[in-house]
Order: sequence, then C-alpha cells, then structure tokens
Amino acid sequence: MTSLGVGLIGTGYMGKCHALAWNAVKGVFGDVARPRLELLCEVTPELAREKAEAFGFARATADWRALVADPAVDVVSVTTPNEFHAEMAIAALEAGKHVWCEKPMAPALADAERMSAAAAASGRVALLGYNYIQNPIFRQIGRLLKEGAIGTPFQVRAEMDEDFMADPDAPFHWKSAAASGYGALDDFAVHPLSLIQRLFGNVARVFCDMGQPYATRQDKGNPRVVETHDMANLLLRLENGMQASLLVNRSAWGRKGRIALQIFGSKGSILYDQERMNEVEVYRAVGPEAEQGYTRTLAGPAHAPYGQFIPAPGHGLGFNDLKVIECRELIRLIAGETATAITFAEGLAIERTVHAAARSFAEGGWVDVGTVTE
Amino acid sequence: MTSLGVGLIGTGYMGKCHALAWNAVKGVFGDVARPRLELLCEVTPELAREKAEAFGFARATADWRALVADPAVDVVSVTTPNEFHAEMAIAALEAGKHVWCEKPMAPALADAERMSAAAAASGRVALLGYNYIQNPIFRQIGRLLKEGAIGTPFQVRAEMDEDFMADPDAPFHWKSAAASGYGALDDFAVHPLSLIQRLFGNVARVFCDMGQPYATRQDKGNPRVVETHDMANLLLRLENGMQASLLVNRSAWGRKGRIALQIFGSKGSILYDQERMNEVEVYRAVGPEAEQGYTRTLAGPAHAPYGQFIPAPGHGLGFNDLKVIECRELIRLIAGETATAITFAEGLAIERTVHAAARSFAEGGWVDVGTVTE
Amino acid sequence: MTSLGVGLIGTGYMGKCHALAWNAVKGVFGDVARPRLELLCEVTPELAREKAEAFGFARATADWRALVADPAVDVVSVTTPNEFHAEMAIAALEAGKHVWCEKPMAPALADAERMSAAAAASGRVALLGYNYIQNPIFRQIGRLLKEGAIGTPFQVRAEMDEDFMADPDAPFHWKSAAASGYGALDDFAVHPLSLIQRLFGNVARVFCDMGQPYATRQDKGNPRVVETHDMANLLLRLENGMQASLLVNRSAWGRKGRIALQIFGSKGSILYDQERMNEVEVYRAVGPEAEQGYTRTLAGPAHAPYGQFIPAPGHGLGFNDLKVIECRELIRLIAGETATAITFAEGLAIERTVHAAARSFAEGGWVDVGTVTE
Amino acid sequence: MTSLGVGLIGTGYMGKCHALAWNAVKGVFGDVARPRLELLCEVTPELAREKAEAFGFARATADWRALVADPAVDVVSVTTPNEFHAEMAIAALEAGKHVWCEKPMAPALADAERMSAAAAASGRVALLGYNYIQNPIFRQIGRLLKEGAIGTPFQVRAEMDEDFMADPDAPFHWKSAAASGYGALDDFAVHPLSLIQRLFGNVARVFCDMGQPYATRQDKGNPRVVETHDMANLLLRLENGMQASLLVNRSAWGRKGRIALQIFGSKGSILYDQERMNEVEVYRAVGPEAEQGYTRTLAGPAHAPYGQFIPAPGHGLGFNDLKVIECRELIRLIAGETATAITFAEGLAIERTVHAAARSFAEGGWVDVGTVTE
Repeated sequence: MTSLGVGLIGTGYMGKCHALAWNAVKGVFGDVARPRLELLCEVTPELAREKAEAFGFARATADWRALVADPAVDVVSVTTPNEFHAEMAIAALEAGKHVWCEKPMAPALADAERMSAAAAASGRVALLGYNYIQNPIFRQIGRLLKEGAIGTPFQVRAEMDEDFMADPDAPFHWKSAAASGYGALDDFAVHPLSLIQRLFGNVARVFCDMGQPYATRQDKGNPRVVETHDMANLLLRLENGMQASLLVNRSAWGRKGRIALQIFGSKGSILYDQERMNEVEVYRAVGPEAEQGYTRTLAGPAHAPYGQFIPAPGHGLGFNDLKVIECRELIRLIAGETATAITFAEGLAIERTVHAAARSFAEGGWVDVGTVTE
Repeated sequence: MTSLGVGLIGTGYMGKCHALAWNAVKGVFGDVARPRLELLCEVTPELAREKAEAFGFARATADWRALVADPAVDVVSVTTPNEFHAEMAIAALEAGKHVWCEKPMAPALADAERMSAAAAASGRVALLGYNYIQNPIFRQIGRLLKEGAIGTPFQVRAEMDEDFMADPDAPFHWKSAAASGYGALDDFAVHPLSLIQRLFGNVARVFCDMGQPYATRQDKGNPRVVETHDMANLLLRLENGMQASLLVNRSAWGRKGRIALQIFGSKGSILYDQERMNEVEVYRAVGPEAEQGYTRTLAGPAHAPYGQFIPAPGHGLGFNDLKVIECRELIRLIAGETATAITFAEGLAIERTVHAAARSFAEGGWVDVGTVTE
Repeated sequence: MTSLGVGLIGTGYMGKCHALAWNAVKGVFGDVARPRLELLCEVTPELAREKAEAFGFARATADWRALVADPAVDVVSVTTPNEFHAEMAIAALEAGKHVWCEKPMAPALADAERMSAAAAASGRVALLGYNYIQNPIFRQIGRLLKEGAIGTPFQVRAEMDEDFMADPDAPFHWKSAAASGYGALDDFAVHPLSLIQRLFGNVARVFCDMGQPYATRQDKGNPRVVETHDMANLLLRLENGMQASLLVNRSAWGRKGRIALQIFGSKGSILYDQERMNEVEVYRAVGPEAEQGYTRTLAGPAHAPYGQFIPAPGHGLGFNDLKVIECRELIRLIAGETATAITFAEGLAIERTVHAAARSFAEGGWVDVGTVTE
Repeated sequence: MTSLGVGLIGTGYMGKCHALAWNAVKGVFGDVARPRLELLCEVTPELAREKAEAFGFARATADWRALVADPAVDVVSVTTPNEFHAEMAIAALEAGKHVWCEKPMAPALADAERMSAAAAASGRVALLGYNYIQNPIFRQIGRLLKEGAIGTPFQVRAEMDEDFMADPDAPFHWKSAAASGYGALDDFAVHPLSLIQRLFGNVARVFCDMGQPYATRQDKGNPRVVETHDMANLLLRLENGMQASLLVNRSAWGRKGRIALQIFGSKGSILYDQERMNEVEVYRAVGPEAEQGYTRTLAGPAHAPYGQFIPAPGHGLGFNDLKVIECRELIRLIAGETATAITFAEGLAIERTVHAAARSFAEGGWVDVGTVTE
C-alpha cells in the first residue's frame, strides 16, 4: 500500500477531527502506509500556516483551488461549511483526487446530485464523513441484525437531540436564518438517517412535522423572526417495509450528543444511545422468562477494531476515535478493498429523504422519497 | 365523612386491583371513613362467592343489574372488558350510583359520548381509572411544570411499550381480531394520552401511522390474518400549541411496562419512565454549565401522598399503590372536594383523539380532533 | 386453614406496614383464611382506638400485656422500638402466641438469646420482619445461585446507605446517644446481613472499622458529643469460605434506601440494589464474548409471588408489598408448612455478627463470631 | 517552548498508548512544540524497526541503554513490564533525561524508593502514568471538592474490578505466580489509590484482607497452586482523617474497566465509574427536598481540556485521550510549569500503602503506612 498525500481544507470542529485522524491512523492500525500530510488550506495564509504547523502538514495555502490541483495531494479532506462542499468536492474529483467530505453533502439537493454525479464520473473514492457508523458497537448492532439475533426487525425509532440552540436568551444564530437550511431536519436528521440506512436500507416515504420552540430571537437588542425549525418529527416507511420514526431537536435542554436507536424485531430488540457510545443493550426472547432482560454489553476487543486502540475491554473509545476508523476505511476504499462507508451515491439517498420530509411538512401528507428531485 | 357502600363488577387484572384498593384506602390514609364492601359481581354465583370472600365483600351476585340497583351500594367499580363499560356505567349512573370505571371508556366513540352524557345528567361522580396520573412522582412533574422549573414547555415525546403480543409463534389472540378495536392505538395510547392531557391539556390535531409486525398468526394450526395494528406512531399538536409525538407498540420485545415521557421546555427538560416509576429526571439550565445535568430524584415523603405509605424516601411505591391513591381521590370527589382525577368528560377527549388518529391513518393526513364525532 | 386472630403492638413505621399487610394478605393471595384483626395496642387508649379504627382492628387497648394474654389473639405483631422487643416477644411466646417481631431482635445480645430460647421452648412460630428477603427479585437471585447460574460464588459485597442522619445541622438525635446502640452497625447492618445469610449462610469472622461524620451535634443550642457511629465498614469471612464486605452509612447524602449487593462467582456475577427493587442484573460468562454483558431483568409473574399482585411484568411491586409476602410466609409457617423466613434462631446469628463486629472495632483485629456470647 | 526529543521503550498496551499520545499532543493542544520522535526500543531490532515505522519514530534500537544515552532524546517513555521500571527509569534520570514511567513503579518497595531518590537527585521531571487522574470529569470532581460542593468529605469508597482473571478454566497465568507480586493488591489498587491520593492526600493506615477465587489453575494439564490473590479488600484511614474502603478484584466477571468512587460529605456526595468515564453524579443537599437527587453531568468543553478534543459536549472522550492529556501535563512540567501529575515522590506513597496492606494481611491488624520501609 503506497502512502497517500493528504490535503485538508478547513480546520474547525471537523477539520481538526480529520487532522487528528490523519495523524493517528498509522499508529493505531499499523497495516497502512503513513499518510503524507502535504497541504492545508485555511482562509488566510497566517491561519493556514499556524494550523499546518499544529496538525503536522508540510505546506499551507489560503487557496483551496491550489490545494485540489496540487500534484502531491492524492486525497482531499473537505471540512468547510456545508455550502462550500459541492464546489470543492467536485473540483477535487475533477482534478482526479479522492474526496473525504463532511456531511451533509450540500444544502441544495441539486448540488448533492451534482456531487454524486461527479463522483461517479471521476472513478475516484468519494466518502462522506458519517462517523457514527464506524463505532465498533454500532457495527456490532449490524452483526447482530445480520445473524438474526432479534429475528426480523419490523420497527426502528431514532432520536437525535442536543441543546446548543435551547437557550431562548441566546442571540440570533445564523442557524436560525432560512439561508442555513430547514433547521434540525437537515442539521441533525442526516446522522440518524445514516444509521438507519446502514442497517436497513433506504427510506421509501416520509411524513414530517416541524416546530419552533421560539418564534423570535434577540438580534442586537431587537427580536428577529426565527426562520428555521429546531424540532422535526418524522414518520418513515423504509423500502424494506419497516416502520420507523425519527425525532430530532436541537433545542433539547439536557441532551448533549444523544443519538438514540430502538430496534424491535420478532425475537428481540436493541437499544443504543450515542451519549453512551461504548454500550449496547440487546434483548433476546430466549431462555426462561424469569431470566430475560436487556443485556448491556461494553465495547471491547471482541468488537473490531476496538482492539486496535485498546487491548482491554470496557475502557472506552471516544468520539475522535471514530474518525480514525473512518480514515482507515477511506484508505481501504482507495486501495480498492471493501469498506464500511457511506459514499456520495449512498449519501444522496439520505439528502433526498431530508428534502422529501421538508416537502411533506409543506404539504401535510406522505411524500415518496423517490419522487423528490432537484 | 360517611362510609361508602361499594359494589365491584369484575375481578380480573383491574378488578383485583380495585378490590385491594378498597381494602387498603382507610389503613393507608386514615382520614376517610372505612368503605363498606357490600356486593361483588362475577359471571357465576360460585366465582362471585369465592371472590367476595377473598376480597372481603359481604355479598355476591352473578347479576350486575342487581348490583347497580342494590340500595346498599353507593359506588360501583366497573372493571369488566371494555365492551361492557358503557352499559354498566350508564346503568349505575342512572341508578344514582357513583362510578369508578376502568379505561378506556368504550370501543365505540358513540358509547363513550353516551357515558359522558349520562355522567353529566346524573350529577354523580364518574371517574376513569387512569391510575398512572396518581403516581406521586408524576404529580411532582406537574408541580415542576406549574412552578416553571423548565420554563415554557414546547415539546413532549411519549412512548408506551409492552411485549405481550411480541411472540410471532403465539396463537391468534382476540386482540388481533378487528372486534377488539384498532390495536395498540386504543389499547395503549389512552394511557400516555391521559398523562399528556393532565399535564398540558387536550390534543388539537393528530397524524397517525400504524403497523403490523406480523401479517398472520397461528389459529389452530392455520395462519389467520391479523386485523389490528400492534404498533402506532402519532404526531400531535396540542391545543396549547405544543408539538408532541406518541409511539406505542405492544409487540416490543423487552419492554414490560414502559410509559416514557420526555418533556422539553425553555429552561430545562424532564424525563420519566413508568418502568422506574419511583424516579424522575429533571434538567435545569441554571448554574455553571460544568455542573448541569439531569437530576434523578427518588420518590419520598416530599412527594405527597408517598408518605402515607412509607415514612422513608427511596423505598418504593408499587403499581397497586397507585390505585389506592386513585381510590382516595374518588372518595374526595364524592365528598365534593377537588381531586386529581380524569372524569368521563375529560376521558371523552382522550377517546376522541384515538378515533381521530384512526381516521388520520385511513386518510393519510392531519385530522383535527374537534371534527371527530360518532 | 383456620382464621388467625391478630394482635398488633405499635402503629409506627413498621406497625402500619404490618397492619396494611394483615388487611391485604387474603385479597392478594386468596388461598389463606382471612385473618381476624382482634386487638391493637398503642400507648394511650385514645390512640389505640383511633388506630384500631384506621387499621380495621375490632378492639383497642393501651395494655400490651392484656393483648398478649387475649384468648382471641393467635399471633402478635411486635413493632415497638427495639428495646421493648424482648420483653413483649417473650411474654407473647410464653402466653402461647405466635410472634411476628420486627428486626433487629434487641440491643443486647443477651436479650436476643433469651428471645431465641423462648421461641424454642414455646414451640410457636417466631418470625423476624426481615422483609427484604421476600422480594421476588431477591428470591430470583437465590434461585439463580442454586441453579449455578454464576457458578461457585466466591465474593459478595454489600452496602446499605441512607441519609436521614446526614445533615450536620440537624439537632441531636436519639440515635446519636450511646443508649441507642452502636450506630449504623446495629441500625443498618442487620438488613444486608439477612440477605447474605439467606443466600450464603452465616458469618464466620469479622473485622470492623467505624466512623463518625460529625463529632458533635447541636442539642438545644449547645454542641453535644455524638456517641454512636453513623458509618461502619466490615470485612467478613463466611462459614462457607466466601470473602465478603459490608459498608453501611446512615449519613450518606443522596442514598435513600440503598441496599446494594454485588455477588461474584466462577461463571458470572449478580448485581442488586433495593432502590430499584424490581430489577436484578446478571452476568453470565457464556456465549460469544462480543455479546456478553449484564442482563437486567424486571420483576414479573415469572418471579413468584409477583403474579399474585399484578398479572403483567414490569409494573412494579412496592416496599409495602414485601410485608404482605412476609405475612403470607408467616401464615405458612403457622400452618406447619415450609416458608421463606428468618426465625428467631436464625436472627440470633445475625445479632451475634453485629456484636462481633463491635468487639472487632474495639480490639482492632478479626473476631470469630462463634466466640461472641452475652 | 522548544521541541522535545522522545525515546520510547516498549510498544505493548501502554507503549502504544504513549506513542499515540506523542503523535497527537501537538494536534490536540496546539500550544506546545511538536515533539520529535527520535528513538524507539523494542526487544529485537526487527520489531523495533517495525514499531518505529508504525509510530512515526525516526530511529529504532534493541538496546535500551543506547536509547537512554542518546543525545537527541530529552524524555524517555518507560512502558516495559514493571520489573524493568526501576533500572530503566533510574538509568534515564542519571543520563539527564526526563522520565515518563508507567505505574506501578516497581514490585519491590526498595526499587520504588531508589527511583524516587534518583528522581530527586536528577532534578529532572519524573512522572508516573496514572492516567485516570487526567480525565476532565475526574478533575471536575476535584474542583467540586475544592469549592465545597459536598461540604467536608468524610468517607470515600473505591472499587476496581475487571474480569481478565475470572475464568477458572483459563490456563495458569504468570500473574498467578508469586513472582508477579501480591495479586490484585499491587496490580489494581494503585489506580484507585492514585485517585484517592489526588483528591484527599495520603493514606495513614490500612487493614487488608485478600482472597483467592481459585486455589489452583491448570498448567499444561495439571493443577498448579495459585500463589497470588485476585481479590483484596482494604479498609483505610487517610491522613486527613477520612474513612475509606478499597475493594479490588481482577476475577470479577462482568466488570471490564470499573473504577468506582463514592464520596460522601457533609453537604452532598459524588459518584464516579470509569466504565462511564464521561459522566459524574453529584448530590447536593440544597433546595427543596422534593427536588434533590443525583445530578448526572456529561463531560463537555466546560471541563477543560475536553474542549481541546471536541467543541461539543456529550460526545465522549476515550481512554487513549487521557494519555494525550497526561502527555501535555508532562510537557508542562518539563517547561517548569505547574501541572496535574503524580511524580515519583508522590507515587512512592502509593507503593508504600500497597506494601502496608500486604503486611496487614499477613499480620491481621492495622498497619501504619509510615512504618513501612524496604
């Protein structure tokens, strides 16, 4: 396996997360070539230089077009705000680079479709940063389902909640402006949808209600009308026939990183909550009734690739470790191997579900996801 | 306070629960007159006599009409299957008796309306057995909301799940036949709806999806088509403007008595689960961020009337204790005092919501609860 | 089975609990004769009459000697403060009555020994009110151990904590005076010791450390020296060879009714906490490592006699229900049947362990329980 | 701040953990000079080269003496088995290097004393790898105690349990041979002792009981006598007067990485469990009794330096992240700044407590830690 030259655009929340992953992937997994951290791009040359030094990149630039064109760069991490994803990712793909782009793909469905088309045309790897699917405990859920541990699943309930928009006295946030998208629907729902897609496939149809905790927020001393919806409740029917629900709320005081799943099947059920990401609870309807119950399993080396990080069980992976695993999967894909990942093509189905939900909210009825196009 | 003469119809799950409550209410609360357990009705004279002896009733009968007409009976506990509620409750009210009737009111909305009308016409107390609202910890939630502990509530999520219908290999159950009702919608949803009503008032409109885990069940060796829905997912808008969701499933392996609430407000949130009925979790967005979190409170004498049962906190009330509290509230109502209770009139709004949900499922759109009549 | 005539001495915390149990036992279990509530004794005739009316007793008295001599009384509930247990229980036994006495037996070991001797001489049933052993979930632990679910147990850790003595600003309490006993050692330790005894047999030797959170407490405006110890830590060796620890604290802020057990064996482990008395967690070292974990079981009809109270699982028994079960066991014993119970003879071993611990604290070394006599 | 030259001896469990930390510390914290990974030592040149490549070290050697003498190396990570710590750490210190040595210091107290003396003589930084004290949530506990959130603490209970020695059918393990030490006492107890020391200072006296789950284990088909103790129960008195207990078990089926603390004080209590390392529960005896309870806080940016890893709360740090924090503290110490760390001098008090406990077990009485010397 030859070493990959890496270009990183953006050094915020996810940019730093990518950078740490690129630095760690060789040490953690051993069996990959050490990536060459070639070029980092930020908005100013000064910031780019500072971050390049911090994250171990050889060179810095404030011109992302130079980065995607750089011959030493094989793969581009795109971690800028969502509105820039399409332009950058497409340019990188057209320049023959592999792309590791943060989710969601783009505010506009047309852009997401163009990204997917560009990926297909390029023949390059185009991966979305849906890191929660990389959690060894989440993969264990997939294994359990495949093995029939809970029989045939017929219902899944998903919730995603945080409270960074919960304070009514906080000043007007750019996420409350219509330009930022629908609100919790596109900001949050894509994450649990990635989990649902990974486990059960695509959504067939959707019904959606949205809500606003606060009609206005303070903007420089004056109330300003909130244009997005911090809450969205979705009812879903999956292509495989399952019934599903998805409740998301970014004004949910007390919730910090909750992504909860409840999966019910003909022989048992499975519970998961990202706030306790090293745990899964499984109920199996077997054995004496007096002994049945939810079995809570702690992540450990039995859940690959946990053991690459820590040889002892129950010691706990962290959020950033998931990006290291995702990075390893990206390298696998680039090497032509199979991997656990959500590509641009698969991500497009998630985006389409989001836009179908928005249309459902406007129309007040079920919307078939397949009928939604740009 | 004069002693009440009690008549009990039915001695199944809820009948026994009523009987235990009538036996315990004086001992627990002290400040009421000891009820006279006059007459018990069961389907045969033999069973009636056996149960009268077991539950301490003076006389027994197999004729419920004799019971509601009995001059020594002041109040009638109606605990028979739902389909008999209307006839019995109305007859009792018309005979001038107070009625304590198990929920839901009746399978047909028209019957529920007749019950409510009969109660109004009678001038008697007509109480529904929505016992979960009597939990001292649930009452504490009400107090917290009233005090503004979580500011203005804007969203509530409710779930109710059990697994007695979860086994696909169990024989065809009468609850799978259309004659029994819609399924989980009327069997389960009324319970969490009673909690929502008590805390936040009535439902304005509803959207509903229903699902069947199993299309057929074994009936004497042959598959028989299942006519009810063990799963129902409801999105709600309350009259007070709140957004709500209600997910119910009686084929949910692993869930035994789950009735879960998540209430989000402008200053905090509240979590509750009936499976841990002596606990409530409250998040308040006050104080240093580093110290915020969900505070889990155990029921104790600070949550009246817990102290009537046990003088020490954290020792745990049980499900049957809630019926004793409900019995005390009934006696309070009969004495003309204010009480925590859901009367026939209030229960009718719950029934109406259920039927509105059923219509929504048939039509695929929102249904205004106010538009639903018999 | 003939009906038992009941006499009740005391109507405080445990007296009321006995009274509720005597009222409920027939209704709950059905298969016993309804007890005749004959005579109730309190400190004044007025209070006795009031409580007799409240608890459904036919007659009242302020003379406990009259009660134990009453020919209509077959069994005496002794629920007075510990210092009166010996005199009353022995008098009742000598009068030919069965005795149901609250724990612990008596502050002085000599009294406990006299009680045990009187019971043996009387040929009557002499039961101690160790209600926690009656919890269906606790009985399930016993069944699991017997079936070898966790192999050979080799270690048990017990804790019991409440916080009613935790406030340093509360006025001097009679439990802080030496006359009340050692402190948490005799006040609390007997409860978890009853659980350990029931599951694993008697204690062979003990080491004990005790501690005082507060050296003085306010007594009418002046500091008064605290003479008892609110905290006690015990290390134990059981007669069966197991290693054990027992930590008790009645000044443990936040703990309300915690009695926690951790049992480790060669094939698994079991966790229990009285604050969640309807749950038990069991780890079995079987099956794939990736699926192992603690299985949390909720109490249900599969755990007899839960089903006598509620036909559905997961709905929750309460603290008072345990006394009803204990009452049923008492009736069983009186009828000459085997039952789950701790008799005076067995209780004496618990008392002896407590006194051995006190001696260990004084001497600073291990004390063999067998060497401790009055 | 100038860049440090790093030498790493050992690449096992902790060696890899050090290597990942050295790779990540600059990226995570930004405000340090990027360490130069100069030289890695393993038992063979081949393994050393392979690991050097994996972990990004420039050079490799199989001669640890060459490493500690290497002029490009400023700081040496010692992660070899405990028996080699003393020789290597002392050599490194004598060569003028800073040392980052894994815990515990050494099996023999005399060696630990020599290490401490060498550190003092060298004037270099000598840090022990007690990583659990670096958990932002653990630091929060320290802050809470300092602020008096629970008043004056008077009792702490600690437990540490894993199950890697729990299988009675596993072959004889080198940890069952006397040469490995006492057993759980030195293998485990040092970790919770480091937490206790950090929060409350040193142990004054100790009483210890030890136990063996299995007397023999299979060794090539024959039973072989187990010479160590997988279980140890300690009662402690701290120098500050607090009462403490410490229960450790490495044959505790079901426990994977449990390090549990319960801290009781005059105004509240604190609970912590390393298996849920991103959570802490705090009870404060303030406000209405009806609202008191344990408040569970999730780690977030409010708990520095969590925010250096992830800007959003509740997303979860992992075990390996603690080593990155520890590495940052080491760099701080080398730069002459104050830091959160356990030095050789402080670690010696922990080792002394362990040896005092062993003596207590042999003698059956309390042992003053201060009386224990080599």
